[in-house]
Amino acid sequence: ARPIDIAVIGGDGIGPEVTAEALKALRAVLGEDGLQTTDYALGARVWHETGEALPEGVLDDLRRHDAILLGAIGDPSVPSGVLERGLLLRLRFDLDHYVNLRPTRLYPGVKSPLDVASVAPDGIDFVVVREGTEGPYTGNGGALRVGTPAEVATEVSVNTRFGVERLVRDAFARAQARERRKLTLVHKHNVLSYAGHLWRRTVEEVGAEFPEVTTDYLHIDAATIFLTTGPGRFDVIVTDNLFGDIITDLAGAVGGGIGLAASANINPDREVPSMFEPVHGSAPDLAGQGIADPTAAILSASLLLAHLGRTAEAARVEEAVAADLANRGAGSRSTSQVGDAIARRLSATGRS
Amino acid sequence: ARPIDIAVIGGDGIGPEVTAEALKALRAVLGEDGLQTTDYALGARVWHETGEALPEGVLDDLRRHDAILLGAIGDPSVPSGVLERGLLLRLRFDLDHYVNLRPTRLYPGVKSPLDVASVAPDGIDFVVVREGTEGPYTGNGGALRVGTPAEVATEVSVNTRFGVERLVRDAFARAQARERRKLTLVHKHNVLSYAGHLWRRTVEEVGAEFPEVTTDYLHIDAATIFLTTGPGRFDVIVTDNLFGDIITDLAGAVGGGIGLAASANINPDREVPSMFEPVHGSAPDLAGQGIADPTAAILSASLLLAHLGRTAEAARVEEAVAADLANRGAGSRSTSQVGDAIARRLSATGRS
Ligand SMILES: CC(C)[C@H](C(=O)O)[C@@H](O)C(=O)O
Ligand SMILES: CC(C)[C@H](C(=O)O)[C@@H](O)C(=O)O
Repeated sequence: ARPIDIAVIGGDGIGPEVTAEALKALRAVLGEDGLQTTDYALGARVWHETGEALPEGVLDDLRRHDAILLGAIGDPSVPSGVLERGLLLRLRFDLDHYVNLRPTRLYPGVKSPLDVASVAPDGIDFVVVREGTEGPYTGNGGALRVGTPAEVATEVSVNTRFGVERLVRDAFARAQARERRKLTLVHKHNVLSYAGHLWRRTVEEVGAEFPEVTTDYLHIDAATIFLTTGPGRFDVIVTDNLFGDIITDLAGAVGGGIGLAASANINPDREVPSMFEPVHGSAPDLAGQGIADPTAAILSASLLLAHLGRTAEAARVEEAVAADLANRGAGSRSTSQVGDAIARRLSATGRS
Repeated sequence: ARPIDIAVIGGDGIGPEVTAEALKALRAVLGEDGLQTTDYALGARVWHETGEALPEGVLDDLRRHDAILLGAIGDPSVPSGVLERGLLLRLRFDLDHYVNLRPTRLYPGVKSPLDVASVAPDGIDFVVVREGTEGPYTGNGGALRVGTPAEVATEVSVNTRFGVERLVRDAFARAQARERRKLTLVHKHNVLSYAGHLWRRTVEEVGAEFPEVTTDYLHIDAATIFLTTGPGRFDVIVTDNLFGDIITDLAGAVGGGIGLAASANINPDREVPSMFEPVHGSAPDLAGQGIADPTAAILSASLLLAHLGRTAEAARVEEAVAADLANRGAGSRSTSQVGDAIARRLSATGRS
């Protein structure tokens, strides 16, 4: 088989550090000949040097790869929103990554901030299917009379049947393939009625194609309660871009910390590269010290393998991470120590 | 002193049950002569009978009272949004309840879903100051080509300097009066840039009037993490209508359950009645069984007293609740048993 061809965007802060460990895991599981990488220097430095978040032509280059592995984007030296909208969201939107997939599993040995024995005795294992290209993330809106007492600022959430339906169908298909076959729509249709009704109707209608999947609804506010008082009830959650952003950080915390939370920005059309990144950000305060936890980046690499159809390898990476987590104990290891330990497990289990 | 004159809207589901217990507490602490109440039948039944959520003239009647005590609004027999927008939000908007105040305290004896010993060893005690009359709650937006594959639905978040500034100033004043004097703005300015910049600038500018208050910023997604991994860091949180809705449910859960979470919809102009209600909803599944926890309603009555300047009585109600909570143990009591026990404590401590 030809090697997997990956575009690597280490990005800012701890991004390059954790990405390096994810690449170790990929090399260990695919073999040196199984992986080909191209580094793309993007992020705060490039923006300072060129004034551009995504210089001309780079997007076309990125399109040629099988997938994109991203570390993190964002730096305090850049005005808020510039890199988010100009680079991270730009990639998600231009590559039409409409399925933002964020699994949460409480792995054995991992400590949750929850009192798990009483609120999740049967464990935690769910996935959030977050819409990635619409909602309040479109950049629609504006401001009038800025800086005066009469200032008005608006943000417009844009939702289309086209966008909601394709996402909801993807979520149902994922629910169908899981053991519990349960899908929970999270929205706020009692207040955001226009968008809420569109989401509700779409779930109802697409749900008819998946009679084996049970559906359920929670308002976003209630969903945050259940994520802390009974996260075991969730299997697949489908929700919009902003609600998904919020609950996946909460889900990450509940699952033992944002240092373990992986994500995939997927365009199901395999001709377009999907993008894999930890849920956490660039954490400038931790950068350069070699203390960031690379686990979320490594689990994101597992999602990358799964998306490219390398199911066995994906499972092996996840198992190596799980084995490492089960044995972590209290001692603290450096970023590369964690990455090396996981890579060693992968080399030891051997390639089949 | 003339009696406090309260409009009582029991509303739907468990609303009337918990409100009855809140009134017991108010009577116990104010004496029979200290309280005057008028019941307003509003909610699902009135809507079914009249087709109106808030019949003509009722709002004018409500305006004549010192305060409104509300149970809960909402019933599955009414289409989503009708009572929310037609009654609950209508009252908040028309009475200009721009300060939506939601305190969280983990009272001794109360069990949180968090592993409190490790994530909040010094306790939990913060208040969310949520904007109540703007943001994505304005009802702005619309839908096009509904029911067709080309449907588009929008929701518009409207934010004004006028609305944000008065709320932020109120939040700073509250922070100034607290021991830790810390204010955290929660928003998502890296994505919702127009509104986010307005909120940020306003906090910065109004903050200059309160040099003793430390300010802090968190994105809404990160805020949900800290609410579970370190809620002790929060003192006063100021945020918009939707983010406030979301984190106050999460805060309620973290503080031992939504059955304990009180709220105040405040118009600081005392000429207009403010409205006090539990954060929880009408919980139709619990209604009529006498098993709902009236604590949130009783604590909301304490907020009512505090707002009307009856500080001593407000403190006595909160203390009676705290004493009851400390002694609850595992046995389950009915709604009225809880209310009676708290009222008994209040009568026993006597009026001064
Ligand atoms: C950095 C930011 C734009 C991004 C988002 O809001 O989607 C992040 O929070 C995430 O969840 O990936
Ligand atoms: C019922 C609903 C409209 C309301 C809100 O969203 O404000 C409720 O969730 C609350 O928090 O008081």
